[in-house]
Amino acid sequence: MKVYFSDRHVGHDPSFFLVRGERQPSAEQPARADVLLDAVRRAGLVVEGPGDFGIGPIAAIHTPEYLEFLQTANHEWRKLPGASTEVIPNIHPGRRPATYPAGIVGRAGWHQADTACPIGENTWDAAYHGAQVALTAADAVLGGAGEAYALCRPPGHHAFSDMAGGFCFLNNTAIAAQHLRGRHERVAILDVDVHHGNGTQGVFYRRADVLTISIHANPDHYYPYFWGHAQERGEGPGEGFNLNLPLALGSEDVHWHAAAQRAFERIAAFGPTALVVALGLDASESDPLQGLRVTTEGFTTMARRIGALGLPTVLVQEGGYLGPALGENLGAFITGFEAGRLGG
Amino acid sequence: MKVYFSDRHVGHDPSFFLVRGERQPSAEQPARADVLLDAVRRAGLVVEGPGDFGIGPIAAIHTPEYLEFLQTANHEWRKLPGASTEVIPNIHPGRRPATYPAGIVGRAGWHQADTACPIGENTWDAAYHGAQVALTAADAVLGGAGEAYALCRPPGHHAFSDMAGGFCFLNNTAIAAQHLRGRHERVAILDVDVHHGNGTQGVFYRRADVLTISIHANPDHYYPYFWGHAQERGEGPGEGFNLNLPLALGSEDVHWHAAAQRAFERIAAFGPTALVVALGLDASESDPLQGLRVTTEGFTTMARRIGALGLPTVLVQEGGYLGPALGENLGAFITGFEAGRLGG
Repeated sequence: MKVYFSDRHVGHDPSFFLVRGERQPSAEQPARADVLLDAVRRAGLVVEGPGDFGIGPIAAIHTPEYLEFLQTANHEWRKLPGASTEVIPNIHPGRRPATYPAGIVGRAGWHQADTACPIGENTWDAAYHGAQVALTAADAVLGGAGEAYALCRPPGHHAFSDMAGGFCFLNNTAIAAQHLRGRHERVAILDVDVHHGNGTQGVFYRRADVLTISIHANPDHYYPYFWGHAQERGEGPGEGFNLNLPLALGSEDVHWHAAAQRAFERIAAFGPTALVVALGLDASESDPLQGLRVTTEGFTTMARRIGALGLPTVLVQEGGYLGPALGENLGAFITGFEAGRLGG
Repeated sequence: MKVYFSDRHVGHDPSFFLVRGERQPSAEQPARADVLLDAVRRAGLVVEGPGDFGIGPIAAIHTPEYLEFLQTANHEWRKLPGASTEVIPNIHPGRRPATYPAGIVGRAGWHQADTACPIGENTWDAAYHGAQVALTAADAVLGGAGEAYALCRPPGHHAFSDMAGGFCFLNNTAIAAQHLRGRHERVAILDVDVHHGNGTQGVFYRRADVLTISIHANPDHYYPYFWGHAQERGEGPGEGFNLNLPLALGSEDVHWHAAAQRAFERIAAFGPTALVVALGLDASESDPLQGLRVTTEGFTTMARRIGALGLPTVLVQEGGYLGPALGENLGAFITGFEAGRLGG
């Protein structure tokens, strides 16, 4: 399996976010990548740096004003007297008639859904190179590789076309899927992160050429709250091309695999010729975010079944936080996937 | 002039909000009411407690789910492990397809635009009685009083039908205007608070029976950022019945009065039979929020001209924060208004 990674991620090191009204250290720390990288190397895989596909394939997913915002926000913010070092939104427009604001404070609220996506001085650089990692993996698959793993950080699946959120800025999964669309008529996305892939859903919500499926903890009492319910099925031409499979908080392997079975059936009916897996590892029973209770063996099984689909596949790293099994679970996923490829 | 006030406001004492990413003490302190009350008494006016008109006239402006949220949010929030004592929103749905969330964390983001409207244990009680103060003043005017002053706290004009924001929970101004509609075909609202009356605009945006006018600091770089621009004119049947008069930051009396002249012309063309003034005093040159530079004499002049309109008028207290001229400016407004009534 090809593996891509950029060390530029370290420039993004968010300090805190608000949890239930209190400041907490961000769980999306640079050390996550060290753990994942170590697991990849222990699996005997070679890690390569990304190519640079430029802004074009990123702009295929994200709006020009959002991309301008991400690139300039920290600089503008720090001109404000008394401003924090990271851009942290406060006022949000909600769901009513509103004007796109001229200044940075308003734009922060427009383009940042929450306090978990603070924009530091090097956040754009890290996110840009993370997207290039995803693109390089997708390009390898386009070029004939059966599969490739993009070790992206920061993650991407909570980012909408014009809004950051939940540790995410650029939607690496969506960018990879769109790149695959260059040669594939139909691409499926399977998101196994413990959190619903709301940004990915939003990006493709009105499209029938990219099937989006997400298996995740029920959002009634879990991030991202507003999205991830079963009744969200796509809109207009995309109606029926979004499948949400929420599971009760604390669900175990058996429920996870049952949801995956429904996902595989929908993928088979859709008939894609390529697949992107939004590979969060935070469904783990030992993840600090404690949404589901998937075992390491559960990751092996899930990966084996995905591998056995036989589709050209890009694995894009999403969440998964510092806990005792993070590296082990990635190793289990890679091993399982390769076994699935071999029919094992 | 009749004056109404409820001491239940003291139960609402918000601790902090995020300003440019940093925690700052809230400017919307109970002591504001003491200063205003003192000014009223020094003007020789008698202060009366409010009646209780029940939830009906509040529900004429605010949605049932929002009112349920305000009443239950703090109790639900405090059941969460590690939660702050006040309900402080984090994740917001933004402007895209979303599901109304089942749990309190999601609902907080849905119904609270920013961190400046934290919901404490007694916030509902304070806001409810503040709305009753506005209703009592409106009812006095309906009953034949030429004018009445509602000393409301917390303020209300940033509250939409289903969203709190900017220190506001229940839109006292809108509630008073709607109550006046019981006997007046056309009611005008003139908002002279330094901040755009975005909630009031939102409540009446599609209605032609209530004219909403706001004179305020340009929102390009000032709260509420997303609203208050000149091009926001109302929608559907309300098109043309919302007038925003933004002024450059730091504008002085002469600009304030010029904007007021445009407001008076629009009011004359509309032909209302009653008026609500959203009486923020934070346009003052000595207000800590520093948006405009209106002098105490400027408040006198503004009030005199409003009084001279000769309309049955409810004055509803909005913003105005602890600074050296807060009480003096209220006194100047009351004196000026009464002089205007006498043709002085």
